[in-house]
Amino acid sequence: MKAKKPSESLAITTKVVLPNETNTLGKLFGGALLAWMDEIAAVSAHRHAKQVVVTSSVNHVSFDIPVDLGAFVTLEAKVSRAFRSSMEVVIDVSVEDRETGESKMSNQAIYTFVAVNKEGKSVEVPPIEPETEEEQRRYDAALRRKQLSLILAGKMEPDAATELKALFAK
Amino acid sequence: MKAKKPSESLAITTKVVLPNETNTLGKLFGGALLAWMDEIAAVSAHRHAKQVVVTSSVNHVSFDIPVDLGAFVTLEAKVSRAFRSSMEVVIDVSVEDRETGESKMSNQAIYTFVAVNKEGKSVEVPPIEPETEEEQRRYDAALRRKQLSLILAGKMEPDAATELKALFAK
Amino acid sequence: MKAKKPSESLAITTKVVLPNETNTLGKLFGGALLAWMDEIAAVSAHRHAKQVVVTSSVNHVSFDIPVDLGAFVTLEAKVSRAFRSSMEVVIDVSVEDRETGESKMSNQAIYTFVAVNKEGKSVEVPPIEPETEEEQRRYDAALRRKQLSLILAGKMEPDAATELKALFAK
Amino acid sequence: MKAKKPSESLAITTKVVLPNETNTLGKLFGGALLAWMDEIAAVSAHRHAKQVVVTSSVNHVSFDIPVDLGAFVTLEAKVSRAFRSSMEVVIDVSVEDRETGESKMSNQAIYTFVAVNKEGKSVEVPPIEPETEEEQRRYDAALRRKQLSLILAGKMEPDAATELKALFAK
Amino acid sequence: MKAKKPSESLAITTKVVLPNETNTLGKLFGGALLAWMDEIAAVSAHRHAKQVVVTSSVNHVSFDIPVDLGAFVTLEAKVSRAFRSSMEVVIDVSVEDRETGESKMSNQAIYTFVAVNKEGKSVEVPPIEPETEEEQRRYDAALRRKQLSLILAGKMEPDAATELKALFAK
Amino acid sequence: MKAKKPSESLAITTKVVLPNETNTLGKLFGGALLAWMDEIAAVSAHRHAKQVVVTSSVNHVSFDIPVDLGAFVTLEAKVSRAFRSSMEVVIDVSVEDRETGESKMSNQAIYTFVAVNKEGKSVEVPPIEPETEEEQRRYDAALRRKQLSLILAGKMEPDAATELKALFAK
Repeated sequence: MKAKKPSESLAITTKVVLPNETNTLGKLFGGALLAWMDEIAAVSAHRHAKQVVVTSSVNHVSFDIPVDLGAFVTLEAKVSRAFRSSMEVVIDVSVEDRETGESKMSNQAIYTFVAVNKEGKSVEVPPIEPETEEEQRRYDAALRRKQLSLILAGKMEPDAATELKALFAK
Repeated sequence: MKAKKPSESLAITTKVVLPNETNTLGKLFGGALLAWMDEIAAVSAHRHAKQVVVTSSVNHVSFDIPVDLGAFVTLEAKVSRAFRSSMEVVIDVSVEDRETGESKMSNQAIYTFVAVNKEGKSVEVPPIEPETEEEQRRYDAALRRKQLSLILAGKMEPDAATELKALFAK
Repeated sequence: MKAKKPSESLAITTKVVLPNETNTLGKLFGGALLAWMDEIAAVSAHRHAKQVVVTSSVNHVSFDIPVDLGAFVTLEAKVSRAFRSSMEVVIDVSVEDRETGESKMSNQAIYTFVAVNKEGKSVEVPPIEPETEEEQRRYDAALRRKQLSLILAGKMEPDAATELKALFAK
Repeated sequence: MKAKKPSESLAITTKVVLPNETNTLGKLFGGALLAWMDEIAAVSAHRHAKQVVVTSSVNHVSFDIPVDLGAFVTLEAKVSRAFRSSMEVVIDVSVEDRETGESKMSNQAIYTFVAVNKEGKSVEVPPIEPETEEEQRRYDAALRRKQLSLILAGKMEPDAATELKALFAK
Repeated sequence: MKAKKPSESLAITTKVVLPNETNTLGKLFGGALLAWMDEIAAVSAHRHAKQVVVTSSVNHVSFDIPVDLGAFVTLEAKVSRAFRSSMEVVIDVSVEDRETGESKMSNQAIYTFVAVNKEGKSVEVPPIEPETEEEQRRYDAALRRKQLSLILAGKMEPDAATELKALFAK
Repeated sequence: MKAKKPSESLAITTKVVLPNETNTLGKLFGGALLAWMDEIAAVSAHRHAKQVVVTSSVNHVSFDIPVDLGAFVTLEAKVSRAFRSSMEVVIDVSVEDRETGESKMSNQAIYTFVAVNKEGKSVEVPPIEPETEEEQRRYDAALRRKQLSLILAGKMEPDAATELKALFAK
């Protein structure tokens, strides 16, 4: 299959934080943001695969900045790397200051999707060909993350995860 | 503060999968499940801390079993370990066969919460004292996961993560 | 059909009261609670019948304690008695004090469900065999409630409702 | 306080049954209808009391006719009788045949509301003065229902419920 | 086809403004009102056509009066004129003062619907025969609005819009 | 106030059509799209004004292409012209073919917003300085639309609408 660029799968959405998505301190629930990230990441994965896609895993996500009721939250999702039938999607989340309009990076999350046919069987997807420096960096890191996932799931021996091991073996 | 048992923070919910929570194949969206897990895990963390809690991070979650429209999904959340103001919550997800009634484990997820006061500042929470063997295992693993998080966030040197390192250094 | 115990149909859910479920005084709408009770009671009835179930009636429900925005509301539903194709489900509702964690019984409701096949025709369900004293009491009361329903619907002569009549005929 | 007519509190709403409100047979959930009835009945009670109203109880409701996805459901609510601070509201539910347009009565439900001030304390409401024959019949029945509620709640001796007793004592 | 009266298509709904439908000033979103108007207008058009109807266009709508959280908003929709397979529906929106109960007209909107069969092809609908003076006025204006739409869409020459032209050609 | 470019107010969102947003033919409700357009247009107007904005009117919108369940709908909103305290926002809606990925323009809508302070009083906003040819065209047309609105609302004499009149006076 012909390789595609990450930019071809770019998916963007801006959400306004509504009352039902906030806790008693008036801050956005983590769960609401997780669901938004899943939705836009699925659009991105679908744009890459042109097939139905299903969420396969969510990588470590942290919530460092509390987000206010009424805030504008923008999510940008792009496929960072494709394996046979799976795709890693990176989602960058930013929050906009309502007075200055300045955007502040609030989160980054990584979801994995699998492309499936109508019977739910996995199908092949095009490889990714990174263009920018950042896309290359994310492309490389995707492999390390895949190895870590396999190890944590007991499906790979730590010794076989050559790249990841380097982190610990200095 | 006096230690508490994991069972004191047990929170349970059973959800019925509705049409708006399914994709075009009639299977539950990952995002819907992530939001459900966040909600019940927050109840569990609150039961432990007796304070407002906010999601601080989501650990690796995988979605291995597709869940059907109309299925009954049960989530059980329990605090596995508490650090100063943060709590790790393990959520066990099972799906029920509608004909036999048998429950099948479908997912396990780990969320971290922080207890905060009304100004949003973190406050101390009681430690955890595991009772069962499984609780002890989860309690031990929680520390390794915390080390891994700190390393991935660049806040800890891999060498200092004594327990985690053991995984790779055989 | 082999009798089942009430405990086999136990269904539990904990809900957090969200802004859209509260009135202008910040208290939970009765309608929201009625819908939650229907959902979890349906899960319970299904666990007993292992068939699709549809709500057939709601018995008298009272709302004595106002429930606050952000409160944790726990619903526990159990089949109290089964007739040929119908099941009475008792739902106990409790609200948790967010500071002390103490649970206070806030409501009790009784819903009736009918098991149906795919064409919507009613089908037989297993009988109930109460175990605890409270289950026995609820089992007995279920018959009186059924008689009262039939009388109010004009489908039974008051004189035939032997047990119920005793209430008035002292 | 000056008496009001039931017609002054008439509140009407027509709803379209959406996918999220239906079970796997494509029929309306009882819980959705219960929530709709609560909402429109509250509008009716408010129109009578001109005060915030809270649901106090739901009388026996039966669901005899399954309602299809996409159906138009019309609810008409009117205060049938007012006691000191409480109001009984009767809700008539009808479903429309989408081809002939004919309306078929599908349910009748009775909810009780209490008028409250901003501190949640009950306040007095105007009495009801029935106009039509049906309104008179419902006005009379409201008292019997109140007696039955009080007896079932253990707050009235069956012997004191003169009108209700007549039902059994022929 | 036999003509029908506008009153035969009257559809009414009363909504309570909930938190999720308000902005940070606690006022109803225009978008929520637009969706409510579409829903009740579709019921009205269906009552006229007895066929599935789909929204074809929305005419100019203005939002002059801010509507508060908790307000009761009543929408009344009636078909004002039918063309071959399309219907113009006028929706009158009023808001109720919660203390005096007085209703204040807040908006008027005009939506156009097309009746379609199961394949989505347009089908013929009955003509409208206005009864009251106001219905006659709306019936006449509907033609001018149709002409304006056609011109703005480039589907009619301004010169051919005899009635509309009169507005400008004094 | 310093003029701003339309591109500074660009707001984008991609939505997936869910079951609750579709009619019995499985096509997107007009009302759902109207609400989405209002939300993203409000984000755009806010980005221009850096003030709370409220919907003031919706211009003629037509729904020409039925949109399927599961479709990806992208909305792009940009301020086309600002008057003293009001802004016209143009929303371009496109639908994506799920197999080829090709985007097809499905709708264009025009909403007007007013910037307000915390008391709800209108406040001044920066003027718009169009950059591209299309932005210039939309900027010019905005004035004609404003005139038409004023005439239809009876707030301007047709004769005074110099530009608009030209349309009819050939």
